Amino acid sequence: MSARARSKGPRLSRRETLLFEAGIKLGGVFHQYLGIPVSDRTAPSLARAIEAAVGLQPFVRRVSVTIHPKRGGALGRGRFAYRYLTPEMLDVSVQLVDGRTAVEARLQHRPDLHYPLMKVVRMDDPAPRARAPSRPRRARPRA
Amino acid sequence: MSARARSKGPRLSRRETLLFEAGIKLGGVFHQYLGIPVSDRTAPSLARAIEAAVGLQPFVRRVSVTIHPKRGGALGRGRFAYRYLTPEMLDVSVQLVDGRTAVEARLQHRPDLHYPLMKVVRMDDPAPRARAPSRPRRARPRA
Amino acid sequence: MSARARSKGPRLSRRETLLFEAGIKLGGVFHQYLGIPVSDRTAPSLARAIEAAVGLQPFVRRVSVTIHPKRGGALGRGRFAYRYLTPEMLDVSVQLVDGRTAVEARLQHRPDLHYPLMKVVRMDDPAPRARAPSRPRRARPRA
Amino acid sequence: MSARARSKGPRLSRRETLLFEAGIKLGGVFHQYLGIPVSDRTAPSLARAIEAAVGLQPFVRRVSVTIHPKRGGALGRGRFAYRYLTPEMLDVSVQLVDGRTAVEARLQHRPDLHYPLMKVVRMDDPAPRARAPSRPRRARPRA
Repeated sequence: MSARARSKGPRLSRRETLLFEAGIKLGGVFHQYLGIPVSDRTAPSLARAIEAAVGLQPFVRRVSVTIHPKRGGALGRGRFAYRYLTPEMLDVSVQLVDGRTAVEARLQHRPDLHYPLMKVVRMDDPAPRARAPSRPRRARPRA
Repeated sequence: MSARARSKGPRLSRRETLLFEAGIKLGGVFHQYLGIPVSDRTAPSLARAIEAAVGLQPFVRRVSVTIHPKRGGALGRGRFAYRYLTPEMLDVSVQLVDGRTAVEARLQHRPDLHYPLMKVVRMDDPAPRARAPSRPRRARPRA
Repeated sequence: MSARARSKGPRLSRRETLLFEAGIKLGGVFHQYLGIPVSDRTAPSLARAIEAAVGLQPFVRRVSVTIHPKRGGALGRGRFAYRYLTPEMLDVSVQLVDGRTAVEARLQHRPDLHYPLMKVVRMDDPAPRARAPSRPRRARPRA
Repeated sequence: MSARARSKGPRLSRRETLLFEAGIKLGGVFHQYLGIPVSDRTAPSLARAIEAAVGLQPFVRRVSVTIHPKRGGALGRGRFAYRYLTPEMLDVSVQLVDGRTAVEARLQHRPDLHYPLMKVVRMDDPAPRARAPSRPRRARPRA
């Protein structure tokens, strides 16, 4: 593939790139780990392993995962006395940084919505696009 | 949900919301389906099932999934003559729309990068933020 | 690797091999698909895709998957009005055959156990162990 | 649960139960973790987290997981310089015990078969089937 073909697609600002990337991280966490056997005892080390995995991905500066096994509902008995990771248990916060631009997003189950909500909770952008109407700052293209 | 709870976090423009959401979809596809047994015969129906699943998610107008089992490398013999879904096999395109704003993103394995690249390939925004320096158009907040 | 090394390990009877393989199939289904977006409308085609995938695996003669989205609890509203596949929704039956020996196993959520129970529901073996004069030791039944 | 419900399905010997359960564990590991970002640095803690999860499941006495990121093929550059967990990287050994009966099984990618082979590598049974006068029918060994 030529350099030309590789650069196809719109150029995103740093902020826009980080928003896209933040979604990738949270979407990935949600769909990767559900179903893993977990207990109060193993939850912290599983959370650390997820953090380490997310921390390898592009633009991630900080990631914090908490797993609440008790939110998974009633526990079985005897040999069934453990749980599988469910959306209710997951609380994930991830901060992505590119230069001086930062985006923080969170995945948290919302009982009122019956839904694992992913949302952007903070954006820091030292050179807001509004100030530069004609040429937004360019991030390095992703490819 | 109270207006208070709803307004927590920065307000994103429609375009920004769709970029975040597009990342969620592609990150989710990548981390959900790897490992599913697949053959040339079953690839199309698996691709349709992935499309139907992604199509349920917020803002998705169109999603197209192609699975190329042959990219998964050499095939086993006899009872091992099938493959498991690998990143190389996946080609996913998703279009998200909110009002007249649209974002299209793609997941495609890039042999030259040894990496499943996710990138934004198109943005359509009829009221670009550059024209409205002080007050960007507001999307409905996600929460 | 030499043929010698390859054959290391105990030889299993057909029945024993099928029991091991049946476990592989059910364990795999449980851990592969949780988290996929699903609705009443998409449940049947997702079930067919799972069946096609399991049907590629060794020894599988028949597999039947039913997905019950409503068992996943309350539904969100508006753009959140769909569910993710949970253990409660899954009902899987798989039959494995080798020659005239057959094993059928089932994965079904058991509300009373708060657990996705996997169990062997049928074994057909034309050279039954009953021919052995000593009665085999019985394990506690799984359910 | 009534005695009636409990007795549905054939009774398995301890050995048979452990074979079925060993399959569940290996099938589950294979289908749960593929796709997790991993590097030489994070591989050991990810392996420990998988061991802790499998160790919660019924009958598991010992589980050993090794992850070999380098088997995942060429590494990307710059921000792409990490890998996702692939079948080639996984080496899992699990021992299940019920009373004095034990079964050990292993998941290991076999380059010669282009396949992640799961096989039973050891069975210990204090009431061996060898007491049965007629030789049990042999299945073709799995490898």
